[in-house]
Amino acid sequence: MFFELSLRHYLTIKSDTMISFESDYNNGCHEAILKRLLETNDERATGYGLDEYCNAAKEKIRTACGKPDADVFFLVGGTQTNATVIDAMLQSYEGVLSVETGHINVHESGAIEFGGHKVLTLPSHDGKMDVAELGNWLHDFYADPTYDHMVFPGMVYITFATEMGTIYTLEELQAISDICRHYNLPLFIDGARLGYGLMAEGCDITLQQLADLCDVFYLGGTKCGAYFGEAVVFPNPNAPAPAHFFTIVKQHGALLAKGRLLGIQFDTLMQDGLYFKIARHAVEQAMRLRDAFVAKGYKMYSNSPTNQQFVLLDSETIKRLEKDFVFELWFPVGDLMNCRFVTSWATRPEDVDALIAAI
Amino acid sequence: MFFELSLRHYLTIKSDTMISFESDYNNGCHEAILKRLLETNDERATGYGLDEYCNAAKEKIRTACGKPDADVFFLVGGTQTNATVIDAMLQSYEGVLSVETGHINVHESGAIEFGGHKVLTLPSHDGKMDVAELGNWLHDFYADPTYDHMVFPGMVYITFATEMGTIYTLEELQAISDICRHYNLPLFIDGARLGYGLMAEGCDITLQQLADLCDVFYLGGTKCGAYFGEAVVFPNPNAPAPAHFFTIVKQHGALLAKGRLLGIQFDTLMQDGLYFKIARHAVEQAMRLRDAFVAKGYKMYSNSPTNQQFVLLDSETIKRLEKDFVFELWFPVGDLMNCRFVTSWATRPEDVDALIAAI
Amino acid sequence: MFFELSLRHYLTIKSDTMISFESDYNNGCHEAILKRLLETNDERATGYGLDEYCNAAKEKIRTACGKPDADVFFLVGGTQTNATVIDAMLQSYEGVLSVETGHINVHESGAIEFGGHKVLTLPSHDGKMDVAELGNWLHDFYADPTYDHMVFPGMVYITFATEMGTIYTLEELQAISDICRHYNLPLFIDGARLGYGLMAEGCDITLQQLADLCDVFYLGGTKCGAYFGEAVVFPNPNAPAPAHFFTIVKQHGALLAKGRLLGIQFDTLMQDGLYFKIARHAVEQAMRLRDAFVAKGYKMYSNSPTNQQFVLLDSETIKRLEKDFVFELWFPVGDLMNCRFVTSWATRPEDVDALIAAI
Amino acid sequence: MFFELSLRHYLTIKSDTMISFESDYNNGCHEAILKRLLETNDERATGYGLDEYCNAAKEKIRTACGKPDADVFFLVGGTQTNATVIDAMLQSYEGVLSVETGHINVHESGAIEFGGHKVLTLPSHDGKMDVAELGNWLHDFYADPTYDHMVFPGMVYITFATEMGTIYTLEELQAISDICRHYNLPLFIDGARLGYGLMAEGCDITLQQLADLCDVFYLGGTKCGAYFGEAVVFPNPNAPAPAHFFTIVKQHGALLAKGRLLGIQFDTLMQDGLYFKIARHAVEQAMRLRDAFVAKGYKMYSNSPTNQQFVLLDSETIKRLEKDFVFELWFPVGDLMNCRFVTSWATRPEDVDALIAAI
Repeated sequence: MFFELSLRHYLTIKSDTMISFESDYNNGCHEAILKRLLETNDERATGYGLDEYCNAAKEKIRTACGKPDADVFFLVGGTQTNATVIDAMLQSYEGVLSVETGHINVHESGAIEFGGHKVLTLPSHDGKMDVAELGNWLHDFYADPTYDHMVFPGMVYITFATEMGTIYTLEELQAISDICRHYNLPLFIDGARLGYGLMAEGCDITLQQLADLCDVFYLGGTKCGAYFGEAVVFPNPNAPAPAHFFTIVKQHGALLAKGRLLGIQFDTLMQDGLYFKIARHAVEQAMRLRDAFVAKGYKMYSNSPTNQQFVLLDSETIKRLEKDFVFELWFPVGDLMNCRFVTSWATRPEDVDALIAAI
Repeated sequence: MFFELSLRHYLTIKSDTMISFESDYNNGCHEAILKRLLETNDERATGYGLDEYCNAAKEKIRTACGKPDADVFFLVGGTQTNATVIDAMLQSYEGVLSVETGHINVHESGAIEFGGHKVLTLPSHDGKMDVAELGNWLHDFYADPTYDHMVFPGMVYITFATEMGTIYTLEELQAISDICRHYNLPLFIDGARLGYGLMAEGCDITLQQLADLCDVFYLGGTKCGAYFGEAVVFPNPNAPAPAHFFTIVKQHGALLAKGRLLGIQFDTLMQDGLYFKIARHAVEQAMRLRDAFVAKGYKMYSNSPTNQQFVLLDSETIKRLEKDFVFELWFPVGDLMNCRFVTSWATRPEDVDALIAAI
Repeated sequence: MFFELSLRHYLTIKSDTMISFESDYNNGCHEAILKRLLETNDERATGYGLDEYCNAAKEKIRTACGKPDADVFFLVGGTQTNATVIDAMLQSYEGVLSVETGHINVHESGAIEFGGHKVLTLPSHDGKMDVAELGNWLHDFYADPTYDHMVFPGMVYITFATEMGTIYTLEELQAISDICRHYNLPLFIDGARLGYGLMAEGCDITLQQLADLCDVFYLGGTKCGAYFGEAVVFPNPNAPAPAHFFTIVKQHGALLAKGRLLGIQFDTLMQDGLYFKIARHAVEQAMRLRDAFVAKGYKMYSNSPTNQQFVLLDSETIKRLEKDFVFELWFPVGDLMNCRFVTSWATRPEDVDALIAAI
Repeated sequence: MFFELSLRHYLTIKSDTMISFESDYNNGCHEAILKRLLETNDERATGYGLDEYCNAAKEKIRTACGKPDADVFFLVGGTQTNATVIDAMLQSYEGVLSVETGHINVHESGAIEFGGHKVLTLPSHDGKMDVAELGNWLHDFYADPTYDHMVFPGMVYITFATEMGTIYTLEELQAISDICRHYNLPLFIDGARLGYGLMAEGCDITLQQLADLCDVFYLGGTKCGAYFGEAVVFPNPNAPAPAHFFTIVKQHGALLAKGRLLGIQFDTLMQDGLYFKIARHAVEQAMRLRDAFVAKGYKMYSNSPTNQQFVLLDSETIKRLEKDFVFELWFPVGDLMNCRFVTSWATRPEDVDALIAAI
């Protein structure tokens, strides 16, 4: 089990006087969104996501995915989105396959089980699912003569980028997708950090390819430019959203009354590729940070090409850096501590300069 | 069963060219909130509602309620709040008592049952619960020798103001509260329209009295000045929030990552009584509307002292008004239609003037 | 709300010295079943209902229904069966339509809601659903422009015989079935007392016709000859049991390890129509009782043609009869009490003679 | 993941011509129970477990446990009992700790998750939980600053005897109990095979000690002498059954209408220690079998002191033995297969002789 730094901890932090690499959801929203919110504030619009802003945002997302017939829905947050999508797509006797470190298995307070479904776990490899282990699990399940006394696999869940900052290669994602289709299991990609994953250094997957290889995924707004919001996409016209998904969203308490807020945010983020530009910025700053740590002889815990960097620091260095910088202590590795530094679309280069200077 | 006008209907509406009395959640947010969002956008803050804005807003709410030790939590929307609070406070074998027209019984897509709980229904009297009927129901339940084969009453749920625009008198609320305490049942007041209820014409209940008489309630932001947000208050220090309510909120997918957005909105609304001032404005405009209808000889369906007005119109009048105004057709009453006109904190007097002129 | 006599009450009853008309599930099982249990006790058989006795019983049931391809499953009890069947056939956003007095709505401790589903209620007419009210409810639901914010109707549930001892005519059942098929809603018939219903005085419905008109029903064993057991039948080959119903039964804790016990009981009951012969016996004794009450000038509360008789008695008569007989006091009607007298397959004619003599 | 032999497999078995060591629930019931069922069949008794037979059985169980004030309830089957007890004792945000091979985690089709609870898993050591691993898990959980975003541990679940035939020593059980009490977690012992565990060769735990060390457990009847039935015991007068457990049982569809059947069975099994005598018989036959395998040079997979024996056989031996004997193939170990041979209260010594001769 791994974990993030205490929330309580932050109650004592002077966030105004320190430079934060704590997380990618402790800032506001991109100024372009703020501008649109100001411009549209006096308008009246239909509620529940049936307004023109949501329609426009959905069109832009369909275009970006190269899926003109995709079903698109806007929800508020990640845990809510995972619980609603998984519950909507599973039969009552089915569970969802995830690696042990998957967000749904660790940090959602049992939201999946609250919906009546088991999270069936596979080992985590720096946050990634191993395709061979997935294949073996499914083979063993159906080879088990008592499988009808067990929880059926009903879906495969992966995160992109993962909680450890890693990403799948196109070849890996293709292989997982092939297995899912062989077993007729929908593949769900949790894209809370999708922008940072697709814009990662060395990522060889396009949004269109990702949409081709899965059955449902979401573009995470909360961590990448928006105040909040996750755009759920069912890209395959032959496998549209479950019937009455709108009602299922409502039943899960996930339907925002003033849905236009989500439409406005995503319409702005999808305009001229803003979402990906700002994600790329975060990755570039993270790479600068990583290179600086390596140059100073520090060992990275994992080789993350995304906005989350994990480095092994000694307690003295931690004490020194904690004076001016906020970052998370994940877990000890021998005498060292695995520390997480997170950049975001909002990270200022000068703040990275300051940290590099302090290393 | 009563209902609101089709959402689909609105897809064809030019909301920019028509004057809308459709609902109180089709606008943006109060400019004072927008201003605060602008000022704070570049700041970093702890997530999940543990920031200083949430703390400040909670203090203002405690002060307004006269309950310095109240537990306060911020959630995003109404259905989500009802489901989370009810599920958190009920035992697995308990249900919640509500009038048939209660929002939880009609328009939440079964969110309460999704949590495993039955909605036990009483008759609706213009949206209100009758204290004698509540008392009789509880007496009959415990008099029933087979009650341990039935769903136990675990909570009483009422709305203030109700879905029909009506409100309880202090005497009525006191009587319901007395019965709840006699049976040791928590009383939950759905305050999605609390501001409009407390500022209603002739309302004889103060926020402090309401907090004294119930065990949990919420101040609705979505319909009264905020972009979104409901402030859940457990006013009684002897009956605080259920243990680990934070985790229960997370499990229900109701925990906003950038919780400060809720803190900023409520801190602004609770500053110098803004929440109540703007609610009062909406009520005043609704009263002007009601008086105009009555003066023209139209019959009101119910005598609502709040921002929702229900008037019986003939089809010709409806056709005429629908050219320039958006309002909802609820259900036919004889040859007439019961039409709902809703004002809000954002209603412009000149728009009311225009409607009055058109009547 | 109506109810049965206190269970606690019975703790003080000398059941060996009194004659009981309390219920139809307070006796043992038919001697033919006991004989089979003795004969088979030393055998080993596969568990979970996959044994030869279950197979034989299923064949006999298919033959009796005239449905050679019907899916048949054996569960232990009624509440369990209702919860499993309803949960298996509903989508997560659907509820089940029942009259207010339906067993699932009153006496199952919220087992349906525990599965996440709302019981949508219609008025009860001596326990029966009115076809016009059902039609109107469904029409109004789909006419409601906000229906996608509500709980969808996913199934219609009726009991045969009803909790009030009444039955549907073929014409009434046909009409309900027609509406269900028009709206593509499965019709579920709770047959906890199916034998007593089909063998009722004046019943014009055959088992085959009932199987034709519904999508799932069960033959109740617990109340009619067996120690326990309900045989669930999905008669329509075009609408078989939900996929993996076996696993759903297991998930609901309703799969009996030694399933052969259910097979042996139903194989015996379905042999040479034993189930219906013993049900007919109970009805005949009930008719004798009813005629005797009427002859003595007592008023029947409802005109039940089945094994449950409801008669209005004064307190003096109740006191007199309670000395020697066990029966239930349901609810007061004016100065009188509505009393229930139940016969069963095990009722001895001499006990009915004794009661008739005592009236 | 490990598994049992196909159920389907058995459809082809001539159970009358072969000697079965398949399982301990493929037979009937003990003749003493059958005798009591015959004697009592004509009696009328109150339903739902409120009869004199249940009362007498409860008294005998309290006496056997040395817990005169224990709460005792009778349920029908194991999965049902696990789901009901766990759901009744957990808060909505809590999960249950079990080893990966625990029955609730593998072979209950997600019955625990159906109730909304996560099964939190620890490694299995021949089916047993390691006390140090339990202690470390709990320490790490509360040391994790983000634990309020996770599923709280609400109970510890162990099986006695385990699915692998192993048992805990008194020292081990005491240590687990101490940790549970330190963390204020109820300890639940699944006693589906409790008789075989307590009567195991070398078992140093008495029923009274087991009752002292846990908060709830059950005496399994289905696998040890009864047709069906599990007796749930809450031994600690300071930690009685959850409020309204009767209603919770009903809500879970686990309340048997003719509860006396359970009372009669357990009253018979607890008379003069019959339950333990017949369990001891099964263990003795299993020991004979184990010694014979070992004497012939076969390697046991685990050193089980209970009625389940696991031996590694080559395919040729399996082919030879499968001609006359029924046993389960669990999983391959190198070139060999781990085979399960199960004895029960009903195992005939001559059948064991025959198997020994055939080895």
